[in-house]
Amino acid sequence: MKAMVFHGPGRRAWEDVPDPELVDPTDAVVRITAATICGTDLHILKGDVPEVEPGRVLGHEAVGVVERVGAAVTGVKPGDRVLVSCISACGRCEYCRAGGYGQCLGGGGWVLGHLVDGTHAELLRVPFADTSTHLLPDGVADEAAVMLSDILPTAYEVGVLNGRVLPGQTVVVVGAGPVGLAAVETARLFSPGLVVAVDLAPSRLDAAKQFGADATVNAAEDVEGAVAELTGGRGADVAIEAVGVPETFELCARLIRPGGRVANVGVHGKAAALHLERLWIRNVTITTGLVDTATTPALLRMLAAGRLDAERFITHRFGLDEFDAAYDVFARSAQTGALKVVLTR
Amino acid sequence: MKAMVFHGPGRRAWEDVPDPELVDPTDAVVRITAATICGTDLHILKGDVPEVEPGRVLGHEAVGVVERVGAAVTGVKPGDRVLVSCISACGRCEYCRAGGYGQCLGGGGWVLGHLVDGTHAELLRVPFADTSTHLLPDGVADEAAVMLSDILPTAYEVGVLNGRVLPGQTVVVVGAGPVGLAAVETARLFSPGLVVAVDLAPSRLDAAKQFGADATVNAAEDVEGAVAELTGGRGADVAIEAVGVPETFELCARLIRPGGRVANVGVHGKAAALHLERLWIRNVTITTGLVDTATTPALLRMLAAGRLDAERFITHRFGLDEFDAAYDVFARSAQTGALKVVLTR
Repeated sequence: MKAMVFHGPGRRAWEDVPDPELVDPTDAVVRITAATICGTDLHILKGDVPEVEPGRVLGHEAVGVVERVGAAVTGVKPGDRVLVSCISACGRCEYCRAGGYGQCLGGGGWVLGHLVDGTHAELLRVPFADTSTHLLPDGVADEAAVMLSDILPTAYEVGVLNGRVLPGQTVVVVGAGPVGLAAVETARLFSPGLVVAVDLAPSRLDAAKQFGADATVNAAEDVEGAVAELTGGRGADVAIEAVGVPETFELCARLIRPGGRVANVGVHGKAAALHLERLWIRNVTITTGLVDTATTPALLRMLAAGRLDAERFITHRFGLDEFDAAYDVFARSAQTGALKVVLTR
Repeated sequence: MKAMVFHGPGRRAWEDVPDPELVDPTDAVVRITAATICGTDLHILKGDVPEVEPGRVLGHEAVGVVERVGAAVTGVKPGDRVLVSCISACGRCEYCRAGGYGQCLGGGGWVLGHLVDGTHAELLRVPFADTSTHLLPDGVADEAAVMLSDILPTAYEVGVLNGRVLPGQTVVVVGAGPVGLAAVETARLFSPGLVVAVDLAPSRLDAAKQFGADATVNAAEDVEGAVAELTGGRGADVAIEAVGVPETFELCARLIRPGGRVANVGVHGKAAALHLERLWIRNVTITTGLVDTATTPALLRMLAAGRLDAERFITHRFGLDEFDAAYDVFARSAQTGALKVVLTR
């Protein structure tokens, strides 16, 4: 089959590799029908995720059709159309049994395109298929469903749920890329009083308004002053960090009111300063997290019911054999305006 | 009256000052019958709390008898024996109405011995007396009750409740001074599986065992290795920081398991490094806080019922005119072994 293979920092190739096989009885092999690229794939390509070895097939987001299943798989069968979650879950360890699939100790967690071969290929071996895929209802398009592999549950769980957004509250989302926009969209499910999006790119601020932001602030301006003015000096109840650099995390910590919460969603490569000399007295809560995807079934139901718009993340469409072009467009998102690029059969 | 007055960094004096008067109709004047000294008072004396002006009477912990009340006070009357909370609460602002008294916007919060004159005196003006004092039941001794002005609710709310200690969990308390010991004691109310105390001083580790720690680790040793061994490699569910320096905060962040919580109780003077490059993926929760004292009534009931031992914090006793000697002993706690020094009539 063809697959997008990581060959060390800065090097990738869409090339022939052996078809994946069933290895464990809990495995399935899925023929990919839709995939998308994540900022994390670009981080891997830059060499920021050193545990990814050369030769690894990239990608952790996909929809596909089950081709074969191992002897222990009972929840999906050949021919089923499934969402492949970015998180694989053994279903049996202490974390999985508490719904903490992202921290799976049994060989799951974020492994696709990381520790095992990923979704940017024609075929995919899915470990723990029963607890790592979701049957797709008819009427949910592949390209919509694939937004639930990662970005929507990530923004919802790690941003909105960890941030404990409540009706009437002020939510500031720092970073209006795909995950930030998904945080804007899913924050609205809790009827916040005010959602403010912050980014450097005017095009992304425009997108944030379309996704439901009530106000936008360019990150080059005085964000603290703007949020203070928007909240009558009160500060934000919740700040969601969706960038992944120290500056934006530290900004979030300055934007929240006493008793407020910072929900970090960004993938960070270095330490931030935690200004405890200011924060110790302010009753703040800071959370981090890898998505568990425990909410994926609920999000899928909302998608099927038309209560969640997933397709509006898609700015560029490609065929499944056009990964090279899709990576090029996504990597140059500042120029191309790419949010999510989708590849479908 | 006599009072312990701050005269700028390094300078204090037990001297004559004017008696406090009723200023607002919500005030009471209380005759102090028991007081204790907090590490924060020593920070003020070092000059670490610059908003404290020379001339300020120190102290925020006391028990006393009401002498006079303003026209608007209905909950206490002259002759009542009351606990003076370290937190004053207007009772009317948005924060107070949500139980967040520590963040009071109406002139309360931590003001005693900070922004208004404090408890290290013969008489004290208590602002917002109805919502800043607690009637003391008979049978609760002054010197026990005064431990509920600050250290017990602080450790309980900011450490144990913010850390969400649950039955069977592993709790590591870093710092076994009075607040750390109070965290050990109140963590036990939730039937944890293992409570580990960490400190540099062997005498404090011995005290931690008496307060209910199952294990102790000297901070000079390999604390991470010791906690890993005690938890079978799992890590702590909750780490409570009760020191207030970057090193101990950063240690707490290393001790917790994925999904664990760091509850910061320490008063910090500078920033710590938040290692988001490691923590972003680990689903951690970090909390900070000034005590609200919303749990003080419940703690008082436990004290009255004999379910909380407050007197064992007391290592040194003085008369109310011996503040000079009490400060000397408390400031040299490394030599004197002082935990809480109590001054009573």
